Amino acid sequence: MAGPALTVAVVTVSDRAARGERIDQSGPALVEWVERRLGRVIQTAVVPDEQPVIRAELERLMDQSSIDLVLTTGGTGVSPRDVTPEATWGVIEREVPGVAELMRLEGLRHTPLAMLSRGVCGIRGRSVVLNLPGSPTGAVESLEAVLPLLRHLIDKAQGDPADCGKIGTRPIFTATSDSLLNFENE
Amino acid sequence: MAGPALTVAVVTVSDRAARGERIDQSGPALVEWVERRLGRVIQTAVVPDEQPVIRAELERLMDQSSIDLVLTTGGTGVSPRDVTPEATWGVIEREVPGVAELMRLEGLRHTPLAMLSRGVCGIRGRSVVLNLPGSPTGAVESLEAVLPLLRHLIDKAQGDPADCGKIGTRPIFTATSDSLLNFENE
Amino acid sequence: MAGPALTVAVVTVSDRAARGERIDQSGPALVEWVERRLGRVIQTAVVPDEQPVIRAELERLMDQSSIDLVLTTGGTGVSPRDVTPEATWGVIEREVPGVAELMRLEGLRHTPLAMLSRGVCGIRGRSVVLNLPGSPTGAVESLEAVLPLLRHLIDKAQGDPADCGKIGTRPIFTATSDSLLNFENE
Repeated sequence: MAGPALTVAVVTVSDRAARGERIDQSGPALVEWVERRLGRVIQTAVVPDEQPVIRAELERLMDQSSIDLVLTTGGTGVSPRDVTPEATWGVIEREVPGVAELMRLEGLRHTPLAMLSRGVCGIRGRSVVLNLPGSPTGAVESLEAVLPLLRHLIDKAQGDPADCGKIGTRPIFTATSDSLLNFENE
Repeated sequence: MAGPALTVAVVTVSDRAARGERIDQSGPALVEWVERRLGRVIQTAVVPDEQPVIRAELERLMDQSSIDLVLTTGGTGVSPRDVTPEATWGVIEREVPGVAELMRLEGLRHTPLAMLSRGVCGIRGRSVVLNLPGSPTGAVESLEAVLPLLRHLIDKAQGDPADCGKIGTRPIFTATSDSLLNFENE
Repeated sequence: MAGPALTVAVVTVSDRAARGERIDQSGPALVEWVERRLGRVIQTAVVPDEQPVIRAELERLMDQSSIDLVLTTGGTGVSPRDVTPEATWGVIEREVPGVAELMRLEGLRHTPLAMLSRGVCGIRGRSVVLNLPGSPTGAVESLEAVLPLLRHLIDKAQGDPADCGKIGTRPIFTATSDSLLNFENE
């Protein structure tokens, strides 16, 4: 990792996990992954798929100056109880739409159903929130897809005035080296 | 088709078709396509490009428990009278942004102007709404682009607790087998 | 250029440029590029990163019937003072999300950080606004990425009833000639 470790909170959103009917696997999978790649998990929580409860928990965590990043897992799909994005909209001050777009595009490699993920990324004060899917694999893969952006996003959101660090990149559309568009008849 | 046929309503949004000055071609093209690939069209309507009228028609259709999917055609562009997305925002409870993103990306194969399509996909109660472009070809091509997602989206929106069915997929960025991003200087 | 030259306003959003602590380079770079490729720049402004100030300036410019397009540069990132998109949301009547999506996708060719750009494109009355990044290079590259769409977008937003002009296009996903999705198990 470049720079100091981030402090992270992980929130599992699941009715069944909150009622103790299912063992939360996604939360621990995220914790393990974060500790290895990104920083230190200093709080975890399990909440039901209830908008006011999710919102209150996100506010509580994001308003702690010691927390850089809040990751949620679960509730990003299209089932009637999936309302994590709506709860997240209620707490963020500014959206960062490209992070969610990138998660969906990267998810297309694995399954077209990734396009149904409604996860949101946004900023509240000095803190960033990112909604991840509910399955352990989906959550970790989605997080991995945007990892190169996360530290920069958080550094900037916290007011770092430094110039953008260089992140290695590989052309996304390798077979077409020019623009996606052209002007044949202009 | 896998599973029982869906019940679908098709709404043509067009001032001229609503006034009888133009024969609606997109509505019938969608009906024909839906009956062949997706399910049964049980209602059709033609409405003018007026937000309150579109909104009322969408509410009326989406609140019928017998309708799984409402397709609109027309009014998704950038002309002054194009307000179908705004009307749709007024009736949906939850957006599914990746469906519209995928329609635009697939549309880029045909024309860069596909990126100007402002169509929205969302959920209200047990019903899904999808805005399609106004031309017969554009409407059918856009629908075809997201067909693999539609049944799953509707099943889930209606509370099907089953695990995600597998949908065949092909790598989207074939020439680049790894992530779109990497970490050269981490 | 096809058709008559567009009339354009360029707004630099930057606290330091507004205070005279930094020479505005992005505004002049955009002016030079626009005059060469797109039309005539008839007004320029430099405003601080204050939502009400940006909003008032955008309203003032977009409500002039002589202005087709307002380009902003700066304030699209994730730093605490970056609020150009929020100000823009406050003035547009209709969003055109695909334009911002395309700028981000094209930006991925240069740097993954392009996905953190939060720029918005939208319509107010007969006028189009487009948020561009703050660096001269980023601003010009982003504008170039969507240039093929801009004239069509503006013509249509101003009520041109003509059929869509053909814009040359090249397949976006060259190695995969079919749809991004398929139906192996349908």
